[in-house]
Amino acid sequence: MTIPEGLMERFPNWDRYRERCLHLPRLGITLDLCRLRIRQSDLDALQPELHRALKDIEALEAGSVANPDEGRMVGHYWLRDPDLAPDSTIDKAIRSSLRGVKDFAARVHRGDPGGQGGRFRNALLIGIGGSALGPQFIHRALDEGKGLCLRFLDNTDPDGFDQVLRSLEGRLGETLVLVISKSGGTRETRNGMLETAHAYARAGLDFPRHAVAITGEGSRLDCLARNEGWLQRLPMWDWVGGRTSVMSAVGLLPAALSGIDIDAFLEGARTMDRAGRETRIRKNPAVQLAAAWYLMGKGERNMILLPYRDRLELLSRYLQQLVMESLGKGRDLSGAPVRQGISVFGNKGSTDQHAFVQQLMDGRNDFFVNFVEVVEDTSGIEVEEGITSGDYLFGFLAGTREALTARGRASLTITLSGISARSVGALIALYERAVGLYASLVGINAYHQPGVEAGKKAATTMIELQLRVMALLREHAGRDFSVEEIARALELVDVEEYIHHLCRRLVVNRSGSFRSIGSADPFATRYTGVAQDARPSPDN
Amino acid sequence: MTIPEGLMERFPNWDRYRERCLHLPRLGITLDLCRLRIRQSDLDALQPELHRALKDIEALEAGSVANPDEGRMVGHYWLRDPDLAPDSTIDKAIRSSLRGVKDFAARVHRGDPGGQGGRFRNALLIGIGGSALGPQFIHRALDEGKGLCLRFLDNTDPDGFDQVLRSLEGRLGETLVLVISKSGGTRETRNGMLETAHAYARAGLDFPRHAVAITGEGSRLDCLARNEGWLQRLPMWDWVGGRTSVMSAVGLLPAALSGIDIDAFLEGARTMDRAGRETRIRKNPAVQLAAAWYLMGKGERNMILLPYRDRLELLSRYLQQLVMESLGKGRDLSGAPVRQGISVFGNKGSTDQHAFVQQLMDGRNDFFVNFVEVVEDTSGIEVEEGITSGDYLFGFLAGTREALTARGRASLTITLSGISARSVGALIALYERAVGLYASLVGINAYHQPGVEAGKKAATTMIELQLRVMALLREHAGRDFSVEEIARALELVDVEEYIHHLCRRLVVNRSGSFRSIGSADPFATRYTGVAQDARPSPDN
Repeated sequence: MTIPEGLMERFPNWDRYRERCLHLPRLGITLDLCRLRIRQSDLDALQPELHRALKDIEALEAGSVANPDEGRMVGHYWLRDPDLAPDSTIDKAIRSSLRGVKDFAARVHRGDPGGQGGRFRNALLIGIGGSALGPQFIHRALDEGKGLCLRFLDNTDPDGFDQVLRSLEGRLGETLVLVISKSGGTRETRNGMLETAHAYARAGLDFPRHAVAITGEGSRLDCLARNEGWLQRLPMWDWVGGRTSVMSAVGLLPAALSGIDIDAFLEGARTMDRAGRETRIRKNPAVQLAAAWYLMGKGERNMILLPYRDRLELLSRYLQQLVMESLGKGRDLSGAPVRQGISVFGNKGSTDQHAFVQQLMDGRNDFFVNFVEVVEDTSGIEVEEGITSGDYLFGFLAGTREALTARGRASLTITLSGISARSVGALIALYERAVGLYASLVGINAYHQPGVEAGKKAATTMIELQLRVMALLREHAGRDFSVEEIARALELVDVEEYIHHLCRRLVVNRSGSFRSIGSADPFATRYTGVAQDARPSPDN
Repeated sequence: MTIPEGLMERFPNWDRYRERCLHLPRLGITLDLCRLRIRQSDLDALQPELHRALKDIEALEAGSVANPDEGRMVGHYWLRDPDLAPDSTIDKAIRSSLRGVKDFAARVHRGDPGGQGGRFRNALLIGIGGSALGPQFIHRALDEGKGLCLRFLDNTDPDGFDQVLRSLEGRLGETLVLVISKSGGTRETRNGMLETAHAYARAGLDFPRHAVAITGEGSRLDCLARNEGWLQRLPMWDWVGGRTSVMSAVGLLPAALSGIDIDAFLEGARTMDRAGRETRIRKNPAVQLAAAWYLMGKGERNMILLPYRDRLELLSRYLQQLVMESLGKGRDLSGAPVRQGISVFGNKGSTDQHAFVQQLMDGRNDFFVNFVEVVEDTSGIEVEEGITSGDYLFGFLAGTREALTARGRASLTITLSGISARSVGALIALYERAVGLYASLVGINAYHQPGVEAGKKAATTMIELQLRVMALLREHAGRDFSVEEIARALELVDVEEYIHHLCRRLVVNRSGSFRSIGSADPFATRYTGVAQDARPSPDN
């Protein structure tokens, strides 16, 4: 055997490996930080802050208002251990929801309720952000085809809606629709629901007899579901954030419907939570992970996820939300301006080695890699004497990691003994707690998302602008306007660019109602409403 | 209408918008750079370098050795315009390959050849990196279900193989397998091929009668395909890099098989190439884009892709490879050390608004966003009076963009009039040329990937180490070894960590051949080979 000299000698020393490796035998999970080049002295110096962070999360788990900006408790840890809940109302609500999930899933699996087309064979989940990413991740990681076949509408793209609804053509009567929105007012989700309900109506089916709502009690969606007599309503609570809702009905119902063992999922998380309460810093995986992120530059470095297992390819998207929405904040808890955040991306190994690992090897050293190794393979043939495809998968992980190490690139590795509902639950719990601890280290609120409102408000403005442009052109049907003339007629300044965008969209997508009079200069195009009887529906 | 004061007044001025917007009427594509806050004076100062970059790419297109480290020409622009090819051999090779793609796809569509199970209805593409990402992107963007149904094996994960092969169970006889590897020796692809061929054999089917090879002439894969009499062989050439091979047979054959208009795809790219040769800097979209990347900090900022269309959700993965593998380099053309690269990530809007846009709004200002707008919607119902889901999709794009602008976050927008083979071809060509021009600006070779070899070599070392550990334990079957004892017996130093990893894998995945003797300390576990007749196949 030829061992490239320069390479093998950089393999971390066995003593150092054993010392820096944190093994969790009850979970079969190992956290290996020995390639981060973090000095023990830096870790030691951080001890007081780490202990403070542990105290913060202890208070959070005991029911403190850990999300002060919104005046809310933060209770996702209670979802897998309702004994922890700060009062009996919450305790009962969690148990009752879990019972509701299990009962309903069991009934669906027995065929009662079924849809108008018979036993439910598919489930269509309509949700976005925290109401989709968790279910999508665990579906990809754990679905073995034992229950309903899951599909998703996670946007407001009519073309995307069409593609998914077309794939269910003729089968809507055996499709259960889960509409998930904590606030009950998320526009993308409402639009997906309306398009879906329309497809049911077109197919001569009664939508409410196929629909389930998961939403805050008393929300618009909740009222709609109650008034229309949907099959089931399950709660979301203000003390669970969307990005940590995967262990509420949001994640549990789709998982249970598709035959995933939700008890094992919750138990894995509960067991990891216990490990995360360990006060001996060196024995606590969540603290170690948070400290690693902190010592890797407090967000100066991108976090690149490379799980070596196809099933985990959505882990990075799940963590993008969990990490970036939690930590990407502009003010600390005292209100002082900061610029926090850690950027997360990656897909899967060894695939990404053939995509962007070139840059990691040679280019900007502005990242650290989070490798995920899975020990257990499925069976496979030998591709060479004595060697399987899975041996190669591990070989590529090890090889890439060593080559990065030799070039001074930092990485950490999480090893799972296998992929199961239990280990995936534990993995989620590990990152959730690391995010909370890291937020304490940098002094921010990890549980709100104040920055996304502005974009939603501006979107509403855009919708209003569109309605005004349409009204103007309809009112003066037959008369043509330049972009500037429309702005002037509406008495608006500096919106010409968007009038230009909106008019272009109108003539393309509502060609029966709006026309353009072309020009060599695209910005000089004139627009006109087509004279016609006022019609309430669009002319597609 | 209430226009939030602070917001609307930041909308860029209409004059500035028209001035900085580059409209390509023949392609229906607009490039809008007015929210990058690039000063005209900086752009003017860059003119000499931009002209030099144009000269470099002119030489490249004329057949210079633009990839000096590998001594190769760089010919992806010829693929859509063989008239440009520097000699008639290349010209003929391109035309002949394109003819081969079309003829073969047409014959498959007619049902001759078919598989042993009848007419081909599915195609299974086995490839990784540049041999998969292009086909995956155009499949997601353009496939309308008019031809064969495409699936992919793009890794060496046996569990991933199982999932895909299971989904084709009973249908392998009507599945055409495309094995794609430029070198013909890519391990992941070879493993996928071997596992697939094994599945055919298990189903009593003759693999070669269902197989097509796309590879370099004379490669191992090419020889295998020739010797076994596969259905078709199509070429890859050393003057086309994997990450720019989507307009060779690599991308064209799967596209043609699934019913995508490959002539329109090539024509779109050819037309964009012409626009990219424009010597008036302000009229050249590829130059503008490259200049924008350069002036946004030469890689200091992450490039975040937000296409507002579900079909484009793989654009970011495609560009991750194209941009990061091309630009992530450690040495410039003179050999001097540099640390180049631009990190690329993102998925789709408005979905990502509910995931990581919080960080973009409030957190680290270390990025620029590349929005992609698509004007044409599919039809949809009204979700509110006068408003469709697609209007909301645009509203969210505009709203998020304005909110980012108001907070001093940079973005650019590419607008496509619609999604078609032609516009997707043009989009790819735009980014390809921008990457080439940017590489000239920073003085690097965009066409090699020297950094990925080290990881592959180290992976081979790992496979050799595994074989030696297996041989040792088998030779001394019944005797147990600690990790340290194995290292000593093999006369290797500092590989204990990997012996530990490999032994753990062996006892889990080959439990019939290897056993462990547990210990409270996982690092003190002892390992032993199980006495048995030497068996050539693994005991799964």
